[in-house]
Amino acid sequence: MKYLRNTGILLLVLFGISLSDEGMWTFDNPPKKQLKDKYGFDVTQEWLDHVRLSSVRFNDGGSGSFVSPNGLVMTNHHVGAGQLQKMSTPEKDYIKTGFYARTAAEEVKCVDLELNVLTQMENVTDKVMAAIAGKSGGEAMMARRAALAQLQKESNEKTGLRSDIVTLYNGAEYWIYRYKKFTDVRLVMAPEKQIAFYGGDPDNFTFPRYDVDMCFFRVYEDNKPYNTAHFLKWKTAGAADGELVFTSGHPGSTNRQQTYAQIEYSRDYQYPARLATIKRTIGVLKQFSTLGEEQRRRADGMLFGYENSQKAMTGEYQGLLDKNLMAKKQSDEMDLLNRINANPELKAKYAWAWDSISTAMERTRSRFKELTYRGLSGSLGSRALTIARYANESKKPNGERMPQFQDAMVKLTLENLYSPAPVYPDMEEVLMADRFQEAIEMLGANDPWVMAVLDGKTPAEAAKMYVTGTKLADPAFRKALIEAGEKEISASTDPMIVLARKIVPIGDEMRTWQDKNISGLISMSSEATGKARFAAYGKELPPDANFTLRLSYGQVKGYPMNGTIAPSITTMYGLYDHAYSYANNKDFELPQRFKDGVNKLTLSTPMNLVTTNDIIGGNSGSPVVNAKAELVGLIFDGNIESLPGRFLYSEEKNRAVAVHPGVMIETMRKLYEANALADEIEGIAAKPASPKETPVPPAKPAPKKKK
Amino acid sequence: MKYLRNTGILLLVLFGISLSDEGMWTFDNPPKKQLKDKYGFDVTQEWLDHVRLSSVRFNDGGSGSFVSPNGLVMTNHHVGAGQLQKMSTPEKDYIKTGFYARTAAEEVKCVDLELNVLTQMENVTDKVMAAIAGKSGGEAMMARRAALAQLQKESNEKTGLRSDIVTLYNGAEYWIYRYKKFTDVRLVMAPEKQIAFYGGDPDNFTFPRYDVDMCFFRVYEDNKPYNTAHFLKWKTAGAADGELVFTSGHPGSTNRQQTYAQIEYSRDYQYPARLATIKRTIGVLKQFSTLGEEQRRRADGMLFGYENSQKAMTGEYQGLLDKNLMAKKQSDEMDLLNRINANPELKAKYAWAWDSISTAMERTRSRFKELTYRGLSGSLGSRALTIARYANESKKPNGERMPQFQDAMVKLTLENLYSPAPVYPDMEEVLMADRFQEAIEMLGANDPWVMAVLDGKTPAEAAKMYVTGTKLADPAFRKALIEAGEKEISASTDPMIVLARKIVPIGDEMRTWQDKNISGLISMSSEATGKARFAAYGKELPPDANFTLRLSYGQVKGYPMNGTIAPSITTMYGLYDHAYSYANNKDFELPQRFKDGVNKLTLSTPMNLVTTNDIIGGNSGSPVVNAKAELVGLIFDGNIESLPGRFLYSEEKNRAVAVHPGVMIETMRKLYEANALADEIEGIAAKPASPKETPVPPAKPAPKKKK
Repeated sequence: MKYLRNTGILLLVLFGISLSDEGMWTFDNPPKKQLKDKYGFDVTQEWLDHVRLSSVRFNDGGSGSFVSPNGLVMTNHHVGAGQLQKMSTPEKDYIKTGFYARTAAEEVKCVDLELNVLTQMENVTDKVMAAIAGKSGGEAMMARRAALAQLQKESNEKTGLRSDIVTLYNGAEYWIYRYKKFTDVRLVMAPEKQIAFYGGDPDNFTFPRYDVDMCFFRVYEDNKPYNTAHFLKWKTAGAADGELVFTSGHPGSTNRQQTYAQIEYSRDYQYPARLATIKRTIGVLKQFSTLGEEQRRRADGMLFGYENSQKAMTGEYQGLLDKNLMAKKQSDEMDLLNRINANPELKAKYAWAWDSISTAMERTRSRFKELTYRGLSGSLGSRALTIARYANESKKPNGERMPQFQDAMVKLTLENLYSPAPVYPDMEEVLMADRFQEAIEMLGANDPWVMAVLDGKTPAEAAKMYVTGTKLADPAFRKALIEAGEKEISASTDPMIVLARKIVPIGDEMRTWQDKNISGLISMSSEATGKARFAAYGKELPPDANFTLRLSYGQVKGYPMNGTIAPSITTMYGLYDHAYSYANNKDFELPQRFKDGVNKLTLSTPMNLVTTNDIIGGNSGSPVVNAKAELVGLIFDGNIESLPGRFLYSEEKNRAVAVHPGVMIETMRKLYEANALADEIEGIAAKPASPKETPVPPAKPAPKKKK
Repeated sequence: MKYLRNTGILLLVLFGISLSDEGMWTFDNPPKKQLKDKYGFDVTQEWLDHVRLSSVRFNDGGSGSFVSPNGLVMTNHHVGAGQLQKMSTPEKDYIKTGFYARTAAEEVKCVDLELNVLTQMENVTDKVMAAIAGKSGGEAMMARRAALAQLQKESNEKTGLRSDIVTLYNGAEYWIYRYKKFTDVRLVMAPEKQIAFYGGDPDNFTFPRYDVDMCFFRVYEDNKPYNTAHFLKWKTAGAADGELVFTSGHPGSTNRQQTYAQIEYSRDYQYPARLATIKRTIGVLKQFSTLGEEQRRRADGMLFGYENSQKAMTGEYQGLLDKNLMAKKQSDEMDLLNRINANPELKAKYAWAWDSISTAMERTRSRFKELTYRGLSGSLGSRALTIARYANESKKPNGERMPQFQDAMVKLTLENLYSPAPVYPDMEEVLMADRFQEAIEMLGANDPWVMAVLDGKTPAEAAKMYVTGTKLADPAFRKALIEAGEKEISASTDPMIVLARKIVPIGDEMRTWQDKNISGLISMSSEATGKARFAAYGKELPPDANFTLRLSYGQVKGYPMNGTIAPSITTMYGLYDHAYSYANNKDFELPQRFKDGVNKLTLSTPMNLVTTNDIIGGNSGSPVVNAKAELVGLIFDGNIESLPGRFLYSEEKNRAVAVHPGVMIETMRKLYEANALADEIEGIAAKPASPKETPVPPAKPAPKKKK
């Protein structure tokens, strides 16, 4: 790929540190030198604390930020969509119609949304290292696991804050991150999905783009809007071309510090297999969608998720198939190994780790199919497994349990288990049948897991038996089983529980084998490679992403694209251009409100923008702020050229895609009759609602507040 | 490249004929079967004749069509731009301001524009083959050259029509094409270059696009507008998505039927060398442009030409560097060779030709640098060479002269020589100096040609001496020299003529060597490969393009682009989106007329469109017509994915880019106050000019008619 030949990357080879806008930095180690050298910006602790405390984590996989002193949280529509779907019904489909609460009373409480704010970070590396001193292999792994469980438990008890163990630099550092946790979260405003996800799957992960991918919630504490001094001041004008901007959010994972052997494994095993599974699942969901409008509505969210994954993973896979990228990964690894090997002490401590990881990968490949295809799909199956495992694990000492059943985490695990979110058994049935079919194809009919799940039936018959027979769709039934305890679970005749009991031992065998032969090896070796990287380059490279809060920096900037140059912003003119250009394509159809309201809009209003900031999935909903920490954008995507960024960042073409604050205010005020919300966001003192100026489609009737 | 794996191409391998929309077809051999099978369209002779006689060739490299019964000819702005530049002055810059003649009296006569309409096509293959029967090698080549010169001369004398020899299928067919010739051509309307070439070099050869690349001339005969029954009826609504459309125009050249050895030569020698020369020339022109506004205006047209070539050739070169494309070319050649070798008779007749071409390529490589870098740049140098050569060649028998000095062509050669088009000596000087500098670098200071041109001076000194000393900028001086005859030319002390006399023998030595060792070999061998292709596949593949009239077919259709899909049309909304999105980029700035007039426009008016039609450079200005031969577009470009089409067409992503008739009418009526022109085009009976509705920027004062 042409874009791997840029200056930043050459410098990386020469000096070990990139001068490009690379990096998802932890807040304890911001890239002060790069910011000063490249942008002349002095980042202060006060600035960092304010941005961190204004940032919000959506625990089901996204990011957000406070944008008013009254607990107003902004994120993407596609981050909020899970909740929108859970509170929707066939008669009241917020995904389709959008939603706006004119008053606090009209705000709708979310079904099971938890938001977190990162309030404390404690480095516990020394404590962990002390616990494993002198141990190695499986012994060290168990000792580490026990030490971490103990540290987490102590933190929970001592601080009352949600305390997560955070592994950084492949295990060269351990931290406890403590979060203030909000569970009373209410929906304030969401536009129609049609405009939030304008352009649909075709435009997903691309730019130029024309999406209003926004969603607003309000956080409550003691039944009152949460009052906070840490919120981002809004700048409707946005940032200028070339301006320094930051994102603060929760990138899910990157694989930049994996060894070449791990990346080869991804290329040759993981990606092809996963993409094939995704493809068949999308086929099943599309087929299901054709059965009727309600089926379409039910499949919609999951279909989005799979299509999104398909497109993202296809882009990542293209990166892995690119010889230049792989050559760069290899030469980076060579550079590191040369530095290690040049110093006898470092060589003795770390050089073994790369071979060790290769061995682990070889072992993984030897059981790749079993590890990949012996899985139950769907919420019913996974809940049955949770219940069956709970029965087994709760008997063990805390430190030996699977992490989700350890004292520190079990409460969360059970809260998730009891979620009242709707279950769609008809959809789960067809998906489960296809997983079974795939398992036969990949593992053969004589595989013990396949025999256990099919029980002599066809995939369709078996799935039907489990799904129609189970009562697990009812949260009360799940809760009752857990509360009844191990014996009751072991005796249950619910067919899904029966199935889970049969296959948990098969899974346990694999897990034990993995722990013994692979996981320990990988975690020790990865820790060694992480420490080797420290020894070679210091702490000047950030750790791989892991859904903890990260700061990235960059600038508003276009890029070379498909023979021409992409601009740094788009405008609402382009939205209407697309609507007419793709007149026959439903993905580009405008919501009625946008069709009717065109004359009310200032079409030169900026719509989306791109920046060089280094982000990845999980950053959805992250605020983009300027040097004054003012809100100048709302991250919702990366361009297609950014996808290989999972393995290697390239400043030339890698771009983060954000919603411009201008279009948010413009549509709130002119199309959604949401002046009160726009006033709150822009910090304008409340005033009486302005009279309606033109005949707009009537606003949807305000839904009744739930419970 | 992914797009080589499409069905059409697989079928090509299997059956020898493509079912994709490939081909630039001669009008004697239209793709009747493909049109019937794929589109259910029966093409009639009447339809073909009408479209052919409505088509116009711009002899300096473009295409056009009649769009009214009164001789109104439509082409691209960038096809007309050479004439616009020639009739412009610093005070009256039509390139910058645009032009519109409200009345016939205001139409401006072009400086040296010749338009041709193809009225007759005669297949003379048998006559040529008879002339060379029993001869081979250089003898055959001379015999063919003599026969063709004789045929052309006879045709000129007999018909009074411009008669061009046309070589098709690598020399397996020879034709005489006869043209009605128009030399009284007047400018009617041109928009500002800023909107004709909107997006500039960045957007050139790309899509989505927002250009009004149109220009209108009127053809006169006997000082009256030329009356014709053959013109294209206009359809302002354009064609629907998926509709069958045709283009009729003059593709300049393709290299699809070259052998693999020739394509390798292009990849390894021609393209890298040519691109390096273009790059340095662009550098010189840009530097020259910075010297002042008048220098910028002078360099503008040439700079466009070089940047255009650079982008086109870079795209073509990318195709050559693509291993999949080269593998496909190799497997196509294999398929043909296998068919030939399978038949002993065909094998004996043709199999030798491929090796023979390889030998010729090897010989070319042996003198590649001399053949490439011993050239004078600029109009002064080339005119001096024409004059010096005229003196030599006119002494020889007709059949032995260089083609441009043979009886049939010499008139045209001298007309071109006497063109009153302006010459910019300051610009020619810097360009000539750079050519000399390049020649030193590539050939060394001791090369005889280099020694001859430098004459002991530096490149800059030598260029200055020639350019400032010559009187060749004056057309009258050129004419006087020619008319004075050989002796006067041989005695001239004009420094550019002195130089030309010195280097003509060096050029003649190379040409003689080429004729003897390469040209004859290639023309005989290529003819054999052309005949072999006939024998293997019949006449079901069209010949390579050669700036003769061709018909291509296809449909209005989007395509997969950079992670998403490109639409089949764009709209004027997109134009304004671009103007705001690229606010800091002058290439995307709107003319004042478009800024001021936005509220007068219907912004959903279609602007540009893409079709699968197979075209290449030279097709600029070609009409796009529907099955009823109605005008539904004006070709002005290809997308970036189409550039490797010089070697291999791919229906998946190869697109022709056209101006939509809607935007032409919309802007004429609402921005250019050109209702009379729009009425003429739309076939609306003349009516009084409509009153001005809104304060528009005042129209430029009508220029005085020249002479």
